[in-house]
Amino acid sequence: MSKKVLAPSTMLVPLPAVLVTCGGLTSDPNIITISWCGVVCSQPPMLSISVREKRHSFNLIKDTGEYVVNITGASLVKAVDYCGNYSGKDFNKFKETGLTPEPATKVRPPLIKESPINLECQIRKTLDLGSHHIFIAEIVATHVDESMITDDGRLDVQKINPLIYATHARQYWSGLSKLHGFYGLTREKK
Amino acid sequence: MSKKVLAPSTMLVPLPAVLVTCGGLTSDPNIITISWCGVVCSQPPMLSISVREKRHSFNLIKDTGEYVVNITGASLVKAVDYCGNYSGKDFNKFKETGLTPEPATKVRPPLIKESPINLECQIRKTLDLGSHHIFIAEIVATHVDESMITDDGRLDVQKINPLIYATHARQYWSGLSKLHGFYGLTREKK
Repeated sequence: MSKKVLAPSTMLVPLPAVLVTCGGLTSDPNIITISWCGVVCSQPPMLSISVREKRHSFNLIKDTGEYVVNITGASLVKAVDYCGNYSGKDFNKFKETGLTPEPATKVRPPLIKESPINLECQIRKTLDLGSHHIFIAEIVATHVDESMITDDGRLDVQKINPLIYATHARQYWSGLSKLHGFYGLTREKK
Repeated sequence: MSKKVLAPSTMLVPLPAVLVTCGGLTSDPNIITISWCGVVCSQPPMLSISVREKRHSFNLIKDTGEYVVNITGASLVKAVDYCGNYSGKDFNKFKETGLTPEPATKVRPPLIKESPINLECQIRKTLDLGSHHIFIAEIVATHVDESMITDDGRLDVQKINPLIYATHARQYWSGLSKLHGFYGLTREKK
């Protein structure tokens, strides 16, 4: 293997490509596609998203202090691309994508009905990092499509068929085909 | 689709499962597996990892203010599971996994030679979030296996064959089989 040193680059693979819903305070809710998203704490359950200040959603998120992370399967790829390429200042993204807003239980932004999993989030900390602000939030409610849960109570990952964003290559992928086993596979049998 | 409300849960899919190298100040370097990892800023390029305070790597990371994120392909699944299940307090994980440390260019923790991509990171902010601290870091150098770059200069995602961790299901997956297209696929042709 021969390695090349590149300019510092955010070359983390895989990344999610989630639809984040926001707003609902004084304006119509909006949808923004986010790949700069990750889990940051287990107890309390927390995740973060990072957003550029110039994006239309930025103030919607800041003003409510809330957002919903809507997980995407491959069937949502066009909506994901649309909501990452167009601005809610110019378009009603629910109308344009045909996605359906549904009331959340604890926050003002709506859930996206067509997403298999919705995570309602309340912001706990915000930091200005440069091009992006990070919004670190507590997950206060989780909604899951019941048909995506197996009989033994696990998420059915192949059925969700998660959309994966490959930064740098700028490609959308899906179709996980190989299960290697469960966490703990190297633990000695007792 | 019928949805079920669950207790708040970190149900974000997909997640990476990276090998983070740390230490090298006064002790041998260590490796810890991390799924709580994401990109948080583009300029400067930044990512974050979250680590429990009780983990052996926690102080190694805190004391140097540095870590390296080593991206994993499916062939590294056993090392990934091992480094997430055993402690560097009890085992030399480089020896146990057979992974090879190589000097980094700007930080003290080593790169893992067998990883296709290594991201050298210097911590800029640390926050205590509860069960985990988040270490927000700037990526100061990026190393990529040249054979993982296509002729037109993109990351060859199928060749990297990234390992994907499905939290909740606690499963390791790989084998991305379907390319849906590139970012911008919904933009009108000019």
